[in-house]
This record gives sequence, C-alpha cells and structure tokens, in this order.
Amino acid sequence: MSGARRLDFYFDFISPYAYFAWRNVLGLCSELSLELTARPVVFGKLLDHWGQLGPAEIPPKRDWLFRFCYRYARIRSWEFNPPKYHPFNPLPALRLALPEVSGAQQQQLITAIFEAGWAQGRDISDIDELITILEAAQLPGAVWSQELAKPAVKTALIHATAAAIERGIFGVPTMLIDDQLFWGNDQFEHLRLYILGEDPLDEQAVRRAQQQQRGIDRRKLKKR
Amino acid sequence: MSGARRLDFYFDFISPYAYFAWRNVLGLCSELSLELTARPVVFGKLLDHWGQLGPAEIPPKRDWLFRFCYRYARIRSWEFNPPKYHPFNPLPALRLALPEVSGAQQQQLITAIFEAGWAQGRDISDIDELITILEAAQLPGAVWSQELAKPAVKTALIHATAAAIERGIFGVPTMLIDDQLFWGNDQFEHLRLYILGEDPLDEQAVRRAQQQQRGIDRRKLKKR
Repeated sequence: MSGARRLDFYFDFISPYAYFAWRNVLGLCSELSLELTARPVVFGKLLDHWGQLGPAEIPPKRDWLFRFCYRYARIRSWEFNPPKYHPFNPLPALRLALPEVSGAQQQQLITAIFEAGWAQGRDISDIDELITILEAAQLPGAVWSQELAKPAVKTALIHATAAAIERGIFGVPTMLIDDQLFWGNDQFEHLRLYILGEDPLDEQAVRRAQQQQRGIDRRKLKKR
Repeated sequence: MSGARRLDFYFDFISPYAYFAWRNVLGLCSELSLELTARPVVFGKLLDHWGQLGPAEIPPKRDWLFRFCYRYARIRSWEFNPPKYHPFNPLPALRLALPEVSGAQQQQLITAIFEAGWAQGRDISDIDELITILEAAQLPGAVWSQELAKPAVKTALIHATAAAIERGIFGVPTMLIDDQLFWGNDQFEHLRLYILGEDPLDEQAVRRAQQQQRGIDRRKLKKR
C-alpha cells in the first residue's frame, strides 16, 4: 500500500450515516487503490464544540432520519436494523477502534461492530456484547477489552477527537483527502470526481464567496 | 390542477439547498402532475426553535457548504453565484413570496428571486433590488413592495413559520406529501419512489425503531 494516496475517514459508531459511509468508503478505497485511515472520534464532542445537536436529538429529525435510513438501505438491499438502544454510549466501541488497541485488525473490527450494531440491531454499547461480536469475527475481543480502562487509551480517543476538531471536522462521517473535506454519506459522487482528477470545483469562485461580507449574524444579533 | 396530489415545499431564500431543491421540485411536479404549494418560512426561527445553528454559522461547515454547492451546480451546468451578502436578511423576499402578497404569480416570483440571488449573485435582501429583479421578470414588484410593511403580511409569515414548526419542519428545504416529510435536496430519489407508489419503507420496522429505548441522552446528562 505504500505510495498509495491516503483517505482519512472520521466516524463514530453512533451514526447510521457513518455505517453506510463505511460500506461505501471500503468499496471506493478498494476500487481506486487508496490507503484508508480510519479515525474514530466522539461525535458528541464534535457537536458540543460546534454548538450543535445531533439529528437524533431533535424529535422530528430523528423520525425522518430513521425513515431515510430504512429507505436508503432497502434500495441497496442492505440490512438495516438500528442498535438495540439509540443513542447509546459509543466510548467502548470507539476505544476498541483506535489503532492503539486493534492495530492491524482495526478495519475488520470496525466492520464487525458496524454490522452488529446497524445491520443486526445489537447493543454495541455493552462491553460483553462487543467481546462476543468480535470473537465471532475471529478477533481477539477479550484481549483488546482489557485495554479499554487504561488511561493511555482513554487519552488517545480524547486526543483523536481534539485533533479532528482542530482540523475543522464538524460531523461524521467525514472523508478527508489532501486538504479536501467531504462531509456526509451523500458525498461519494463528488469525492470520486476529486480523486479521479475531475473535480468540478472552481477554486477562484470559492475564494470569492469566502471573502463575501456577511449581511447579518444571527448569533451576534441575539446577543445584543 | 384540481384533483392533483399536493406537494408542500418549505423554503427560505437564505438556503442554497433550497435554491437547488426549488429547481428540482419544479421539474418533479411538472413531470408527475403534482400541485405544488410553496411555503416560505423563516429558517432562522426554525433553527432557534429546535436549538440548532445553520450550516453557514459554523465556519468549517460554511466553507464545505460552498464547495459542495459549486460542485453540485457545476456538474449540472447550473449557474451558481451566492448572494452578494450571506447570510442576509431574508424577510422582505420571504414576505413577497407569501401567497397573500404575490398570489397567483407566487411561483414566478420565487423563481425570479432564487435565480437573482443564487445564480446571479445579487443582493436579495434589499427591497429596491428586489423590485428591480421582479420588474425585469415582468412582475409587479413595486406594487407588491407596498404590502411588505403591513402588519397582516408580517403576521402571515410569522404564522406560516409557526405552523411549519408545529408540523415538525426542522429545516429547509422540506418537501411534504401526504404525511411524509422529506428533508433536504438529496431526497428526490426517495420522494419520487414514494409518489410513484414504490416507497421502499417498511413502516413496521420504523415503528419498532421509534419505540426503542434511548441508551443515553446527551442533553439530560449535561443538565445533571
């Protein structure tokens, strides 16, 4: 894989879009020979930092979200069964997904947890259940689970999340390649064009828009 | 048009996605003989109600958003030039778009304002500019502009926005048909299937997901 272009994938198991995007990004990286770097982050911390709520925290948006996901999955004949509890505590699963814990088998672990949570509807917040899931996938879940309470592992996830925020990651899933950020599972058409050297973006036009003056600022108005 | 199925389209001129979706929804309604009801709402009020920020209020999201829009438009050979100021005060344009003001010519007005703002990059917060835009489209902009300061017109927009919130509208653009809400410009594939009677949704599966227990509640946790 050395010499291949690298694509960073920021995710949290709590997001159904991240589950869909994980399936899509595996296909894309395989097809276009990209080196995939999976980056677990705590979505709730991203939301806190940027002052947002998650889609499942707004009742009608939560309702729409699940309807969307069922439709999206059914059209592709993908299994979709949300985790037993949702939202749930994703920290044990995210810590398992750190390269510091699952190492060379990180991607197999991520696939196993996403599938168990979002295709089979299992409780991927529960450590014993996670061990069962991983062992069934021929992965050393019991061994890895002993890492989870270690301060260095907890710190690694905190640092990974902080670094993502520093990089301007505001949601999951986010794909990052070169200096280009693609947020959301609906970005694969644009991402593919970018990777193929067919990016339709006119950078000059973007810079002009970025330099435009803000007419109003809702937050500043409210603070007055 | 009487007897045709009705599709409600909730929008605010401030949203580039609403501009794209307006173009898409006009095509869809024409193709499938739907009666289109355009519903201007104040996006900022929806965000306030549901406790959200708009995409342009989060700096890296604003940057990504404009890049996305340029790519999306270029792929379709659509003109895309953001309004001279953004975000801007959309209230005059939204009031003009009320059926109480522009009546039978409401849809022509909406098209004229969206095109001026998002294809030609003009200042659609300015009343004089709006009059110029409308008159150039053979619409009585000067006459309509005299309605804008009337309390009944201001109240109509407030009521329209409140009714949208009551209906569970949390963002723009939103398309509503029967009791089905489709949020976002990326929903046209699903919306089309629904209208054609080919909705892939399994309502029983959705109900099961809705009844699932929440494992954690980030807001309640923080309030402790």
